[in-house]
Amino acid sequence: MTRDKINKTLSPPPLFIVISGPSGVGKDAALDKMKKAGFPFHYVLTATTRPKRQGERDGVDYQFLSEEKFRQMIKTNQFLEWAKVYGNYYGVPKREIKEALKAGLDTIVKVDVQGATTIKQILPDAVFIFLMPPSIGELANRLKQRHGLSSPDLDLRLNKAQEEIESLPLFDYVVISHTDGLDLTVTQINAIVTAEKCRLKPRVVTL
Amino acid sequence: MTRDKINKTLSPPPLFIVISGPSGVGKDAALDKMKKAGFPFHYVLTATTRPKRQGERDGVDYQFLSEEKFRQMIKTNQFLEWAKVYGNYYGVPKREIKEALKAGLDTIVKVDVQGATTIKQILPDAVFIFLMPPSIGELANRLKQRHGLSSPDLDLRLNKAQEEIESLPLFDYVVISHTDGLDLTVTQINAIVTAEKCRLKPRVVTL
Repeated sequence: MTRDKINKTLSPPPLFIVISGPSGVGKDAALDKMKKAGFPFHYVLTATTRPKRQGERDGVDYQFLSEEKFRQMIKTNQFLEWAKVYGNYYGVPKREIKEALKAGLDTIVKVDVQGATTIKQILPDAVFIFLMPPSIGELANRLKQRHGLSSPDLDLRLNKAQEEIESLPLFDYVVISHTDGLDLTVTQINAIVTAEKCRLKPRVVTL
Repeated sequence: MTRDKINKTLSPPPLFIVISGPSGVGKDAALDKMKKAGFPFHYVLTATTRPKRQGERDGVDYQFLSEEKFRQMIKTNQFLEWAKVYGNYYGVPKREIKEALKAGLDTIVKVDVQGATTIKQILPDAVFIFLMPPSIGELANRLKQRHGLSSPDLDLRLNKAQEEIESLPLFDYVVISHTDGLDLTVTQINAIVTAEKCRLKPRVVTL
């Protein structure tokens, strides 16, 4: 093994990390906690056409777009992946990821399980982390809090979550999204990134 | 994916972790630090026929054996691997590892690079971590401190270290053994273990 190769091993290329899991599992909460803890990642902003929820800000929580703008970006191939979910468009803008990786930043993106499946086909060397609810009952509780007990969305989402758990095999890691604070969840995600950076055979993502 | 399979994924089997690297790189110092920090591993005690160094205790630092006893254990196949290095025998007792893994404990062993190569053949699903000196110059400094500037051992060990770095490709992870305290080194080893426990396809070691 040449010294060049060794040096290369020791300064690994930036990682592209895909955080996924069922709706309601706590993806946003986990990422918020990581941002607040100051983990040095580039967090990719998802674009969406869904209405802002209370407290959400454009350019901070999502990139809120009109349907017209979103469709135009689809046409010009500007999304790594996009989907229409529960009547709204969601998409991961390609350019932002390209620029972050080029700048050498570990880049993290949050997508639904269908999105992760698509990204796996395009970038198999990304790091795929599945956020798993502690139980389906616990997931139901969280969704009830958000959508209300009698919401027609509830059953739809729970059934979908069960389906999504079937996609587990495409992921590299599974991390439980614990109810009582996300400290352990965030510690585990951070450990995964640290470990991946020590891998002898680094993953190389080219976009 | 059945619930059974998912549950199995979420309570992974115990890991067998092999820490290796050139003589003088700081394997003992790193493990000492991990023990003191209270990381919940079973640390396998290496058996050796080499004389105790100052401050070392039998049953704590090594299992100090007579040559006769050691040779008898070789004959009865009681070592996972053993070798004669610089005139002394070193060996990893099999029974201790078996019992620790059976008790569900993550088990960590420290061996030289040749030992790691042997274990890789017997237990390919162990986690192999290479402790790397920050530079060959730095390694020389550490060995000088231990063996004296003009020791004939010094060149021998430095040449061997260069050879050993050639074995890097058999390892899963490489961690730098930093001079200025081993905090980062120990954090990285711990992160590797945490990440490995989140792997979707857990490693299964049967001995």
